[in-house]
Amino acid sequence: MKIALLVVGDEILLGQVTDSNAARIGQLLYARGLGIAEKLTVGDSLEEIRRGLGHLAEHARVILVSGGLGPTLDDLTQEALAGFAGRPLVENPEAKSNLLALLERRGRPVNAIQLRQCRMPEGAEVLPNAMGTAPGTWLEHDQKVFIAMPGVPYELETMLQNQVLPRLERLPRSGVLLHRTLLTGGIAESDLAARVESWAAGLPPEYQLAYLPALGTVRLRLTATLSRERQDAAGLDAHFEAMTHLLEDAVVARGDVGIEDRLGEILLNNKLGLSTAESCTGGSISKRITSVAGASQYYRGGLVCYQNDVKISTLSVPATLLETEGAVSEACVRAMVEGALDAFKADVAMSTSGIAGPGGGSPGKPVGTVWLACGDAAGIEAKCHHFPWDRHRNIEAATAYSLLHLWKFLRQRGYC
Amino acid sequence: MKIALLVVGDEILLGQVTDSNAARIGQLLYARGLGIAEKLTVGDSLEEIRRGLGHLAEHARVILVSGGLGPTLDDLTQEALAGFAGRPLVENPEAKSNLLALLERRGRPVNAIQLRQCRMPEGAEVLPNAMGTAPGTWLEHDQKVFIAMPGVPYELETMLQNQVLPRLERLPRSGVLLHRTLLTGGIAESDLAARVESWAAGLPPEYQLAYLPALGTVRLRLTATLSRERQDAAGLDAHFEAMTHLLEDAVVARGDVGIEDRLGEILLNNKLGLSTAESCTGGSISKRITSVAGASQYYRGGLVCYQNDVKISTLSVPATLLETEGAVSEACVRAMVEGALDAFKADVAMSTSGIAGPGGGSPGKPVGTVWLACGDAAGIEAKCHHFPWDRHRNIEAATAYSLLHLWKFLRQRGYC
Repeated sequence: MKIALLVVGDEILLGQVTDSNAARIGQLLYARGLGIAEKLTVGDSLEEIRRGLGHLAEHARVILVSGGLGPTLDDLTQEALAGFAGRPLVENPEAKSNLLALLERRGRPVNAIQLRQCRMPEGAEVLPNAMGTAPGTWLEHDQKVFIAMPGVPYELETMLQNQVLPRLERLPRSGVLLHRTLLTGGIAESDLAARVESWAAGLPPEYQLAYLPALGTVRLRLTATLSRERQDAAGLDAHFEAMTHLLEDAVVARGDVGIEDRLGEILLNNKLGLSTAESCTGGSISKRITSVAGASQYYRGGLVCYQNDVKISTLSVPATLLETEGAVSEACVRAMVEGALDAFKADVAMSTSGIAGPGGGSPGKPVGTVWLACGDAAGIEAKCHHFPWDRHRNIEAATAYSLLHLWKFLRQRGYC
Repeated sequence: MKIALLVVGDEILLGQVTDSNAARIGQLLYARGLGIAEKLTVGDSLEEIRRGLGHLAEHARVILVSGGLGPTLDDLTQEALAGFAGRPLVENPEAKSNLLALLERRGRPVNAIQLRQCRMPEGAEVLPNAMGTAPGTWLEHDQKVFIAMPGVPYELETMLQNQVLPRLERLPRSGVLLHRTLLTGGIAESDLAARVESWAAGLPPEYQLAYLPALGTVRLRLTATLSRERQDAAGLDAHFEAMTHLLEDAVVARGDVGIEDRLGEILLNNKLGLSTAESCTGGSISKRITSVAGASQYYRGGLVCYQNDVKISTLSVPATLLETEGAVSEACVRAMVEGALDAFKADVAMSTSGIAGPGGGSPGKPVGTVWLACGDAAGIEAKCHHFPWDRHRNIEAATAYSLLHLWKFLRQRGYC
């Protein structure tokens, strides 16, 4: 059962929003052993949407569509779907009564613009929108299933989870995808490849290995495309273990998790409290740490100290140190770790100080210079990086390499 | 000159990475008056890449390809491009000498896996990769231009900026896109639409209005598709002003900026220092504030206080208040604002405390309950939200509504 995705929206082609929906849809399908074979993004144009539906329907049995269901004149998905299927666009009574009930609950008046959302191709079934006003539709036409969902991320996700996936699972399908993912740290992609490629060359043809490089880490994904009858998870596990064994010293975590998840596990297992003191990363490290559910069990708290006097008053960084060495220095990040251990009564602390750019650079400390450190009562490990990118990317890199640095520090201390 | 984009990578279809490249490419083209007409994403498969090239080349004159240029066996773009164009795949001497020079500079040995990256369709020109090992290519074939770029975001961005865009600008083209964007806050999309649609209906046919809703804010984008000879920016500006006038009280900012950029401008203009005290948002607010270049001129710093004793020790939140009212309460966020004004010697402070989930909820304070506050020496404004989503989305919403709350607070105080 081939599934394709059509994303509708000028704003995505123009880059005014990043298409996070497509990733989320991919994840949710993958969790059920399904995969998207092809994804097409088109603008808010009747003709482009229709042409897109035609291209995808050539090879796919199920065509998911996201976006273009809202109330405004640039929302054209239902009209394009009706045109493609050669059906009239009609107001659906169920969709209308759902919308009226929702507006009443919210205590909001009905306007004609909102009622536009209730028009759909004749014969389409309503997929109720639990999170917003635009209903989705399920349309079976010419041996294919066309499923229109709103583009607003949480509306889409809720509709996909509660309405679409259970119905998709009832359709007959032939193969399933199974995956295992390994997170590695501190090794470049081509070095990883050199270590596993002769092993990978011996894999059965239904296996595929993919490299997903990020800053400081690379994920390796091993995929098996298996028949529904013969879902040989044990075979996949055996191959995965063999690969993991080849990379032992670089393995951060098994599973499709982030380094922040693994750090949380290590801190929790060892009953360690963590604190952070961030200058150039400006809260990005604490954001990633607290993105993990249950982080309150090991994360004591953090400081974002964007000014020298704040470093002095909240972290007790000596003023003379800032004068002689500057805020972007090994001495400063070491003092910040000491301050963060103390201020938060933490067992382990980490710190960053650097020049994210575009301003603030100097010949001796150009934009992209970042000092980072980790430490505990037994000592502190500091490291300097020079990143060549823009502000946004330099912050992201400093955050990623700080988390990697903490993982190496915890391993060196024997905590994992 | 129609431009299409082909994105190659299983990891994008599977949702293991979000496709931020496509957004960035859209932004960079848009800045030069160019737009992507269509975007297709396919997996790491020779056949799928070739079929995708065929679909896009039907209507487009320029086909950008990102991804699939790396050194490993799942990188198939060059081979697919050679197959599509009916040309042999050959090792390019210029690409090879660039790669050898790069590896020598980095002090790294050459291995056979890396050399694979130097194979490209016969007749293709090399686009040097200033940030990594995989070269890009520019291939003119059958009246079309095929441009292959690496999938690693900063490699792609640098190549696009320095190599591809200057060459694209030299190709003949017919029309240009001009845009103006307005950021509105605190008004729902359909209410905005009701206020502007009769005006929008009177726009000339070359104008388009799009609504881009986000949490708490909606961007309105007015686009004109104009001929190269008659780039009537003044006409666009006049229409944009008329629209802005209709929405006056909801206008956060003119231009394609985030609310954090506008807040920075207001704080800077009024010489105000800001501090933050975050519980459930865990650093997300300070991350957004410090994403703006120059934030150090108005951002004093912030605290992430994930534990009650940290709220007491660093922000002087009274222990009795936490016992009687709990951390997720109006009294607590008010005390946090007071503590943050004091600890950071700030003029304005903001705070959050809530239950992001999945754990930690109770009947009286279910998951998604978030208190937020803003204040200065003259007083504090607090507000409670109930978000219905998962941890990630609840944190994102609490962050977005906190920034909106600060904007409203600053407006109420007459700072903007």
